[in-house]
Amino acid sequence: MDLKQYIALVPDWPKKGVMFKDVTPLMNNGDAFKYATDQIVQYAKDKQIDLVVGPEARGFIIGCPVAYELGVGFAPVRKEGKLPRETIRAEYDLEYGKAVLTIHKDAIRPGQRVLVTDDLLATGGTMEATVRLVEELGGVVAGLAFLIELNYLHGRDKLKGYDILTLMEYENE
Amino acid sequence: MDLKQYIALVPDWPKKGVMFKDVTPLMNNGDAFKYATDQIVQYAKDKQIDLVVGPEARGFIIGCPVAYELGVGFAPVRKEGKLPRETIRAEYDLEYGKAVLTIHKDAIRPGQRVLVTDDLLATGGTMEATVRLVEELGGVVAGLAFLIELNYLHGRDKLKGYDILTLMEYENE
Repeated sequence: MDLKQYIALVPDWPKKGVMFKDVTPLMNNGDAFKYATDQIVQYAKDKQIDLVVGPEARGFIIGCPVAYELGVGFAPVRKEGKLPRETIRAEYDLEYGKAVLTIHKDAIRPGQRVLVTDDLLATGGTMEATVRLVEELGGVVAGLAFLIELNYLHGRDKLKGYDILTLMEYENE
Repeated sequence: MDLKQYIALVPDWPKKGVMFKDVTPLMNNGDAFKYATDQIVQYAKDKQIDLVVGPEARGFIIGCPVAYELGVGFAPVRKEGKLPRETIRAEYDLEYGKAVLTIHKDAIRPGQRVLVTDDLLATGGTMEATVRLVEELGGVVAGLAFLIELNYLHGRDKLKGYDILTLMEYENE
């Protein structure tokens, strides 16, 4: 299945000059959504995954069906102030300023093998912070899975040594 | 399975006097997550669902695996400014002020039968706005499914005439 036909290209969003890759048409189509999810499940199947982790909010859309199909739990990574119990935090750089991601302290038991999911690998900042949170709690990052990789933003450079699956790649804007 | 054992009760969150019902431990447990998802899938199975819709962000956690298992798509309802293409909007009242939810204009085709999901039915404001968005696009709301219903907040009063499933009920704070 050519998944790219379900990606909407949105000019100048979230700001001028960016051609945004919108995955909502893919989610909206039952066949495409199932196909994409199953590709990630196949990738994860022999990795003895104990838990899926994903950053809000689009990481939930991919990660939750994958967790369900693998028969494991899902732990959300959220912006500061959104999780109600004790958390740990990771800062990461944005173009201007910093952002913070958090995860519940009891979300991962040491030694658990974790698959991390998100819709898009762009500069890699969100994923690098998410990986730090998983590892700080003693989780083993067994794989990273994305629907889309924007090769021209070189997110992989921040994620060296990790096993990465991407279902679609874009070479330029 | 007694799902309530997987709900964390968090005092004074998000504000003093509220005993928050945190569903993240349920999500975190593979068996409980699968059991809860399957209950909703069973409920939805004979309703000829074409699409699942859920408000961000916890509505995604429930709705996406349900959509996957039903073999249909998922459409996110998000806060204003988060969806990149043309949207319609619904305002609803908060305790102080108003909030706005949006959905992509092409997310639902007229006549599609829609299951709406969220983690929690509290005052019903979010769900009532979500139902309005679905119906404005011509969708038929075939069912509403929640993990938790807070009976003492009377959310059902805003949702009269709709078919509602809740997996857990709380009678008081």
